Amino acid sequence: MSPKYVYFFGNGSADGRTDMKHLLGGKGANLAEMTNLGIPVPPGFTITTEVCDAYYKNNQQYPEKLAGEITNNLSRLEKLMGAKLGDPENPLLVSVRSGAAASMPGMMDTVLNLGLNPDAVKGIIRKTSNERFAWDAYRRFIAMFGDVAMGVERHEFEEILEKCKKKARVKSDTELAAEHLKCVVDEFKAIYKKRTREPFPDDPKAQLDKAIKAVFASWNNPRAIKYRQLYDIKGLLGTAVNVQAMVFGNMGNHSATGVCFTRNPSTGENKFYGEFLINAQGEDVVAGIRTPEPIENLEKEMPAVYKELVQYKNILENHFKDVQDIEFTIQENRLFMLQTRTGKRTARAAVKIAVDMVKEGLIDKKTAISRIDPGQLDQLLHPMFDPRAKRVVVAVGLPASPGAATGRVVFSAEDAEKFVEKKEKVILVRKETSPEDIGGMHVSQGILTTRGGMTSHAAVVARGMGKCCVAGCGLLNIDYKNQNFKVNGRVVKKGDYISIDGSSGEVMLGQVDTIEPRLSGDFATLMEWANEIRNLKIRTNADTPEDAKRARELGAEGIGLCRTEHMFFGENRIDFVRQMILAAPDVKNLKIKISHLENELAKATNDKAAVLRKELAQAKTELKEPLNLYTSALKKLLPIQRCDFEKIFKVMDGLPVTVRLLDPPLHEFLPQEEASQKDIAKKMKIGLKEVLEKVTALHELNPMLGHRGCRLGITYPEIYDMQVQAIIEAACNMKKKGIVVYPEIMLPIISTEKEFSALKDNVLRIANDVMQKKGIQVEYMVGTMIELPRAALIADKIAKHAEFFSFGTNDLTQMTFGFSRDDVSSFVPYYIEKGILEKDPFQVLDLEGAGQLVEIGIKKGRSTRPDLKVGICGEHGGDPQTIAFCHTIGMNYVSCSPFRVPIARLAAAQATLQQPVSRATV
Amino acid sequence: MSPKYVYFFGNGSADGRTDMKHLLGGKGANLAEMTNLGIPVPPGFTITTEVCDAYYKNNQQYPEKLAGEITNNLSRLEKLMGAKLGDPENPLLVSVRSGAAASMPGMMDTVLNLGLNPDAVKGIIRKTSNERFAWDAYRRFIAMFGDVAMGVERHEFEEILEKCKKKARVKSDTELAAEHLKCVVDEFKAIYKKRTREPFPDDPKAQLDKAIKAVFASWNNPRAIKYRQLYDIKGLLGTAVNVQAMVFGNMGNHSATGVCFTRNPSTGENKFYGEFLINAQGEDVVAGIRTPEPIENLEKEMPAVYKELVQYKNILENHFKDVQDIEFTIQENRLFMLQTRTGKRTARAAVKIAVDMVKEGLIDKKTAISRIDPGQLDQLLHPMFDPRAKRVVVAVGLPASPGAATGRVVFSAEDAEKFVEKKEKVILVRKETSPEDIGGMHVSQGILTTRGGMTSHAAVVARGMGKCCVAGCGLLNIDYKNQNFKVNGRVVKKGDYISIDGSSGEVMLGQVDTIEPRLSGDFATLMEWANEIRNLKIRTNADTPEDAKRARELGAEGIGLCRTEHMFFGENRIDFVRQMILAAPDVKNLKIKISHLENELAKATNDKAAVLRKELAQAKTELKEPLNLYTSALKKLLPIQRCDFEKIFKVMDGLPVTVRLLDPPLHEFLPQEEASQKDIAKKMKIGLKEVLEKVTALHELNPMLGHRGCRLGITYPEIYDMQVQAIIEAACNMKKKGIVVYPEIMLPIISTEKEFSALKDNVLRIANDVMQKKGIQVEYMVGTMIELPRAALIADKIAKHAEFFSFGTNDLTQMTFGFSRDDVSSFVPYYIEKGILEKDPFQVLDLEGAGQLVEIGIKKGRSTRPDLKVGICGEHGGDPQTIAFCHTIGMNYVSCSPFRVPIARLAAAQATLQQPVSRATV
Repeated sequence: MSPKYVYFFGNGSADGRTDMKHLLGGKGANLAEMTNLGIPVPPGFTITTEVCDAYYKNNQQYPEKLAGEITNNLSRLEKLMGAKLGDPENPLLVSVRSGAAASMPGMMDTVLNLGLNPDAVKGIIRKTSNERFAWDAYRRFIAMFGDVAMGVERHEFEEILEKCKKKARVKSDTELAAEHLKCVVDEFKAIYKKRTREPFPDDPKAQLDKAIKAVFASWNNPRAIKYRQLYDIKGLLGTAVNVQAMVFGNMGNHSATGVCFTRNPSTGENKFYGEFLINAQGEDVVAGIRTPEPIENLEKEMPAVYKELVQYKNILENHFKDVQDIEFTIQENRLFMLQTRTGKRTARAAVKIAVDMVKEGLIDKKTAISRIDPGQLDQLLHPMFDPRAKRVVVAVGLPASPGAATGRVVFSAEDAEKFVEKKEKVILVRKETSPEDIGGMHVSQGILTTRGGMTSHAAVVARGMGKCCVAGCGLLNIDYKNQNFKVNGRVVKKGDYISIDGSSGEVMLGQVDTIEPRLSGDFATLMEWANEIRNLKIRTNADTPEDAKRARELGAEGIGLCRTEHMFFGENRIDFVRQMILAAPDVKNLKIKISHLENELAKATNDKAAVLRKELAQAKTELKEPLNLYTSALKKLLPIQRCDFEKIFKVMDGLPVTVRLLDPPLHEFLPQEEASQKDIAKKMKIGLKEVLEKVTALHELNPMLGHRGCRLGITYPEIYDMQVQAIIEAACNMKKKGIVVYPEIMLPIISTEKEFSALKDNVLRIANDVMQKKGIQVEYMVGTMIELPRAALIADKIAKHAEFFSFGTNDLTQMTFGFSRDDVSSFVPYYIEKGILEKDPFQVLDLEGAGQLVEIGIKKGRSTRPDLKVGICGEHGGDPQTIAFCHTIGMNYVSCSPFRVPIARLAAAQATLQQPVSRATV
Repeated sequence: MSPKYVYFFGNGSADGRTDMKHLLGGKGANLAEMTNLGIPVPPGFTITTEVCDAYYKNNQQYPEKLAGEITNNLSRLEKLMGAKLGDPENPLLVSVRSGAAASMPGMMDTVLNLGLNPDAVKGIIRKTSNERFAWDAYRRFIAMFGDVAMGVERHEFEEILEKCKKKARVKSDTELAAEHLKCVVDEFKAIYKKRTREPFPDDPKAQLDKAIKAVFASWNNPRAIKYRQLYDIKGLLGTAVNVQAMVFGNMGNHSATGVCFTRNPSTGENKFYGEFLINAQGEDVVAGIRTPEPIENLEKEMPAVYKELVQYKNILENHFKDVQDIEFTIQENRLFMLQTRTGKRTARAAVKIAVDMVKEGLIDKKTAISRIDPGQLDQLLHPMFDPRAKRVVVAVGLPASPGAATGRVVFSAEDAEKFVEKKEKVILVRKETSPEDIGGMHVSQGILTTRGGMTSHAAVVARGMGKCCVAGCGLLNIDYKNQNFKVNGRVVKKGDYISIDGSSGEVMLGQVDTIEPRLSGDFATLMEWANEIRNLKIRTNADTPEDAKRARELGAEGIGLCRTEHMFFGENRIDFVRQMILAAPDVKNLKIKISHLENELAKATNDKAAVLRKELAQAKTELKEPLNLYTSALKKLLPIQRCDFEKIFKVMDGLPVTVRLLDPPLHEFLPQEEASQKDIAKKMKIGLKEVLEKVTALHELNPMLGHRGCRLGITYPEIYDMQVQAIIEAACNMKKKGIVVYPEIMLPIISTEKEFSALKDNVLRIANDVMQKKGIQVEYMVGTMIELPRAALIADKIAKHAEFFSFGTNDLTQMTFGFSRDDVSSFVPYYIEKGILEKDPFQVLDLEGAGQLVEIGIKKGRSTRPDLKVGICGEHGGDPQTIAFCHTIGMNYVSCSPFRVPIARLAAAQATLQQPVSRATV
C-alpha cells in the first residue's frame, strides 16, 4: 500500500495531528490540531513532506497516486466551501504555502489568491461588490505567481506598479483605484508573457499544479540550503505544501487581520498581547505602512469577535501548555485562525512564563526547567544596551564575554587606571592582553582586542571577571605610537568614546545607553527548582574573594579552579615575583649541573673523580647567591599568598576550594617593554643587559607547550612548596577561627605518573610539617588537572595517586586539535564558514576528539580509584551542551565563570531530565 | 626445603652453569662454566644473589642455613687446595669478589689476599721463600679490608705508604723492601685500630664473614644505586659473592698476569689479541706503571703456557660462540683462567666478527644480526675524530646529529656561504636556526646552536642532511653584534677554528683531525642478511634528489617523507613564495568576508539585502589585486616545483615517493630582520611598513599550534592545488620517459574527517584534470599524516577516505605531552636527571602515551580500511627501540634520515627475529 500523501483539515476535524510535524510540517500539523480543537481554521489540505522527498529522489517527478489524492481533497474542499476553483459564479481562492518541520521564516515560497482568472475576478466582484478588492487580489496573485512559480523578477512588477502610481499621481498602493489596478493587471500579464514566453495561465488547476511544484522547488533554493546549513537543520524530508481556502481581512471595515501572543513575549506578563489592522491583509501588518492597533482595542471595535478570539487563544495556550504566537484574520465579522506556534520570548519573559505556568498548574516544574534555553539566561546576567538606543556599528569582533560597555578608549593598562582615578569609564583597547594588564582590565568597563579568539587571555579573564569583551576584532588597526586606532577609514583617538557589545561582538562609536541586569524573584525560584532536579554539582572558577563571593551568591557550590598566578600581579608582590623569576633559572641550571656532576662522579672510576669534586664544589658556591635571592623572594611571597587564601577560604566557608598551583610560564611575569625592564633593573640593582638576557633566556617559541605547570613545580620545587605552605597555613588559621575549609590542591599540566607522585610527596611533606607546627589537622585532597592527551591516556596510573581529576578542557582541546586558542582566529572562522567545523571547539566541547579523551580519562581513572572525584574547569564548564555531556559521562561537578553559574545550574537540571541516570552509573 | 645458597666450583666440575647468571652473577656463572669445560680455574664457591636479596629483605640478616653451607664449601675448598684458611703451615688465601648478573665495573667491592695474619705470613714466607711478597700481600690485604669492610678511608693508608716511601727514599711501591713493608703493616694496623676502635682481626673466619657482609653491603652503596639508575639496570636480586682461592702472578719471573681477547676488539680481525706482565698482579696491569707486553711475546717467554692459553681461548670462543675477554694469571708456570666474558668491541669490529663467524660456521646469520647494536652502527656512517687527536673541550651540548666537524666559526647563513665560496670550511653557530638558514646549513661542515633540543629545527635538518650538529649548548653566549661567542671566559671570534662532535655533544677549540667513514664489504653483507629477515620496509625522509640518491644507496625502499617547504627556499623561488605569502592573507580575509556577506544575504529577508549586495560587490572588487599577485606567484612556482619532483621521481624510479604538501606556518618564509624586510619591500614595490604589518599579522604566539599544515590547504586552496598539479604533471612527464612512479600525496596536520575529505576532493579533481590533459594515467595515493591526538582518536573516520597513514611522531609527541620540542631543553634534561622521564621522548617514542595513540590509530584506521598502508615518518623512525615497536604493532614501513637507513634495516631484522609475527597480524 502506498502511503497517504494528502491530509485534509476542515469542518472541525482533520486527518493530521500536532505530533505529525515531521510529515506535515509545523504549519500543517498545527492547522490540523487547531481544526480538531474546534477552532475555526480555513479548511484545506496538506501535501506531506514525503512527497517532497520522493519528488527529489525521483528526478523531480511526483509519486503516481498524488494527482488523484489532490483531486479528491480539492473536491472535498470545494464541497465544504460551497465554491469551486475557477468557478465564475462562486470562485474558490486558495493559498499555497510551504511549511517544513523546522521553522525557516521567509526562506521558501508562498502563493496567495490562487484560482483567480478574468472570470473568477468577475465572480469575486459579484460576490463582494468590491471591484477594487478583486483587482487588487488579482494583481497581487500575478506578481506572486510570476515571481515564485516562473522566476520573473519581483522588481519588474514593482517598477510597473511604481510607474502606475506616478501616472495616477498617488503615493501608496492603497490609493490606487480599481481602474488603475486593472491596468496594472494588464501590464503584469504583458511582462509575464515577455519573460516566460507564455501567456499567464487562466486554468486554476494549472495554476495550482505550478504553484505546488514551485513550493517544492523552493526547498532547495540556495537561500534555503544556506539557511539550513547556518541553523544546523538536518534530517528533514523536505517541505510540506499547505493548500488552504483564502480568507480576506481586507474586505472592508468588518474585516481585519492580526497577530497576537497569549502572553507578553517581552515581559512574560500573563496578559493578552498583540496588534491588528482593520481592512488589511497579513502582509500589510508586516510592511508597517499603517500602524497597527493594540489587540485590546479590538474589544471595542468588534466585541463578539474579540470574545471569540480570547476564547480561542485560551484554548490554544491550555492545549499546547505554552505561549502561542497566533495569526488570525477576520473576514466580514467572521474570525479565522490562520496559524499558531510556540511564541518566541525574551529571557526575562521565558523565566516569568515558566514560573507562572507552574503556579497556574499548567505545567510542572520539570517542564518549566526544560523550557528555558540556558544560553539565553546570559541576557539576564549582564548589562545590556537599551534596545531603543541608536547604534553606529563600525566593526564586529568575536562576542568573547557578554555584556554591554561604554567608555573612553585607552590603549594601556596604565592609562586605564589613570582615567579611572579621574572617575572616567574606559574601554581597554589592545592588540592582545597579557597577565600584566590584569589591573587595567579590572578597572575597565570592557575589553576590546584585535587578536585572539574566544579563549584568548582577554576573553578568559574577562569572562572570569564578568566583564564585557569583544576579541579578535581584526578590522581595527591599532597604532600604539600615535595612541589611536583606525577602522573603516575613521580614526578613533585615546579618550574618544566607544561602546562594545560582548554578546554580539559589535563595536560602536560614541556612547550607547545601557540597562543594568536584575535578578527577579522568578529567576531565583527557577534556580531552586533546578537544584531539586540536578545531580551535577556546580562550582566556579574564581581567583579573588570578590569573584568567589559573587559566584556563591549565584549558587556556586565550591571553587573548581582558583588560579594562583593572578595573585602574583599586585603592586605589593610583582617585584618579589620578578626577583624570584630572575634568580630561578640560575638556581635550576646550577642544580642540574650539580646533579650531572654527581652522576658523573658516581660513574667515574679514576682520577677524573678529583676534578669532578672540584667542579662540584665550585658549582655549589656559585649556587649560593641566586639561591639566596630566590628563597628570600619566596619568603616574602609566602605571607601574601597565605592572606589571599585566608580571604577565599572565609568566603567559601563550608565549601571545597580547588587551588591550582602556579601554571603559566615564568616569562609571563616579566615585562616585555624596555621602560618596565629598566625599572626592574633599577629595583633589582642589576644591569638592564642582565635583565634582557634573562628575559631572552626565558623566551619560548611555543610557550603553550613549554616550561609551565607542574614542570615548574619539578624544576623549581621551592615555588610549589611555598604555595602549599601558604594554602595549608591559611586553612589551619581559618579552621582555628571556626571556618570550615576543604582545600583541594591541584597540580597542573601533569603528563606522567612520576611527575604527579613526586610532587604529591612534596605536598604531603609540607602539609604535614605545617599541620604539626600549627597543631591543627585539616582535611585536604591532592589531585590534578587532566589537560594533556597523555594524562587522559594514562589516567589509570595517575589516579593511583590523585584523589581528584579536573579536566582542563581548554588545554585539552588545544593539544587534541593542535590548535592554539590565541592563534586560531586566522582559520577557525573560515573553517566554520566553510562547514569544516560545526562549532568553535573552544566554546562547545568537541565530543568526538577531546570528549573522547575525557571519557577515556574518567573510565581509566575510576578503574584504579572507583571513588575518584571528577570535574571540569575549562571554559566549556559553562556551556550547556558540554554540561549535558559531563552529566552523561558521570562527572561529579562542572566549574565555570561566576556569571555562568545559574546557566550551568539550569543546564545541569535539564541534563538530568533528559537522562536521569548517567552513562557511568549504568 | 630451603634453596641451595652456595655453589662450588673446582677440580673440573662445578655446581653452576653459564645460564645461571641471575643466581650466580656473571662472574660466578662463568667461573662454573669454565670449570666444567675443564679449564684450570682457581677453585672456590659462589654465594647466590638470593642470599643478597634475603639479606636485605630480612633486616640485614643471613638465611639460617647459610653459615653451614659456607663452612661445608670452605672445607671442600681447603681439602682441594691442600691448604687451610689461617693454617700457619700451609695457609689458604682467598679473594672475595662481588658479581651481579649485569656488569657494574668498579661499583662494588672486592677483598684480596684474605686469610693473612702474622702466622699465615710466616707460612707464606716459608712456602715461597719470598718475604717481600708475603708482607706486600699482607699490607695490601689490610688496606683493602679496612677500606671495604670497615670504612677506613683509603687515603689514610695511602698517606702512610707515601710517608714510608719518603723515609725509605724510594719513588715506587715496588722499591720498598720487606722490612719497609713490615713497618707499613704495623702502621696500617695502628690506623685501622684508631679508626675502628678494634684491633685488625687475625681470625680468618671473622675476616671472611666481614668481607662477605661488605660485598653484600656494597650492592646498595650510593654509587652502585646511581649506576643502576644511570644504566637502567633493573630486576636483579642483588650481587653474588665469589670466594676463590688466590693465585699470584707476582711470585717471580715464572709468574705473570694478563688480559686478552680472542679476536681484535678494535678491528675485528681474527687474531689473538692482548697483553701481559711478568711478575705482576692484575692491578699492576690496570695501574699502568709498567708497560705490558703484547700477548704474542708470551710465546717466547713461556711457550708451553702460551700454547695452553691459546688452546683455552679457542675452547672458550667455540663454547660461547662469541669473542671472549679473558683474564688469566700464571703462578710459577701454572696457568689459571680467572674470568671470561663477552668482549666489548667497536662497531667496525662487531660487523667484521659477526660476518666472519658466520663464514666460519660458528654462528648463523640470525645470530649475527642479533649481535650488532644498531645504535652503534652510527659510528660507521659518519666521520669521526681521530681518537688519537688532542681535544680541548670547552663546552658540551646535546649530541643532535652524529659526526665530527671542524671549521671556521660563522654566525650567519650568508657568512657561511661567503666563506665557502672562498673554499673555507665553516661551522655555523646560531642561537637557533630557521628555514631561512637552510642554504647556510647546507654548505657548513656542522651546526652548533645554543637553544633547542634534539628535535629542534637545527637538529632535524642536520640529521636529514647527514650533517654533524650539536644543539642547545647553553654555555655558549653568542654576541651577534660583535660576531663572537663567549664560553668559559674565552672569546671565540668569527673565523676562528672550532671542532664539534655530534656524537658526544663536545665543542672543542681549534682544528681536530677527522677520519672519514668507510662502508666495508662485511657491512654490506650484514645488511643483505638483514633484508632476508625483516618484514618492515625501510623508507627515507628526503627532500632533495641528492638525499634521495644517498638513501637509496644505503638501501631505502622509497621516500616516506618528502617535505615540499624546503623546496621553497632557493634563490630563484623564495621571492615568488614571499609574493604569494604577502598577498595570501588579504585573499583569505576577503574571501571570508565575501562568504560571510553571502551568508548574511541568505538570512536577510528585508532591505538589508540591498546593502549587503553593495558590500559584496565592493569586496569582490577589492579581492582582485591581491588575488592577482597571489595567483601569478603560484603560476611562477608551479614549473619550479614540477622540476623538483621530476628529479626526485627519477632517482626513486620504481619506488614510492610520499610527498607532504606545504606544512609550516607561512611566517616562516618571511624574513624577521629589518634588512631583509627592506629588501623585500623593494622587490615587491611596496612600503616597508606594509611588509612589517603583514609580518606582524602572520605572527603567532604558538606557531606549532597555529595556522599550518592542511589548515593552509583549506584557507589557501590554491597553494595545495599548485603543488598537486606539480606532482602529477611531474609523474606524467617521468612516466612518459619510462620512469616508474608511485607518488603518494600526503596531507599534514589533519584533525577532522571533513578537512581530509574536502582536500582529497581537490586533489582528485586536480589530478584528473592533469592526467586528462596529458593523456596519461599514473597510479597515486592520497593519505595523511597522523600527528595530532585527535587524528588518532578518529582514525576510523579518516581512513574511510585516506589510503595511507604516516604517523608524524614528532608532532604527535609534542601534542600528547604538551611539549614543544624547541623549548623542552629548559626542563627535559632536568626531568631525565631526576628520573621523572627515563628517556627524551623526542628520541625514543614514548610507548605509554604517544605509542598508545599510534596503536589506537592503526587499530581504528584498519577497522574501516583493512588494507590501510601504515608507516612512521617522525624522527623516531630511525630509533631501534621505536622500530621494534613499529614492527610489533604491524606497520608496513618506517621512514628515517638517509644516514639511519642501515640502522633501521638492522633494527627491523632484529625486531622480526624477536617477534616473528606482529601483534596486528595475530
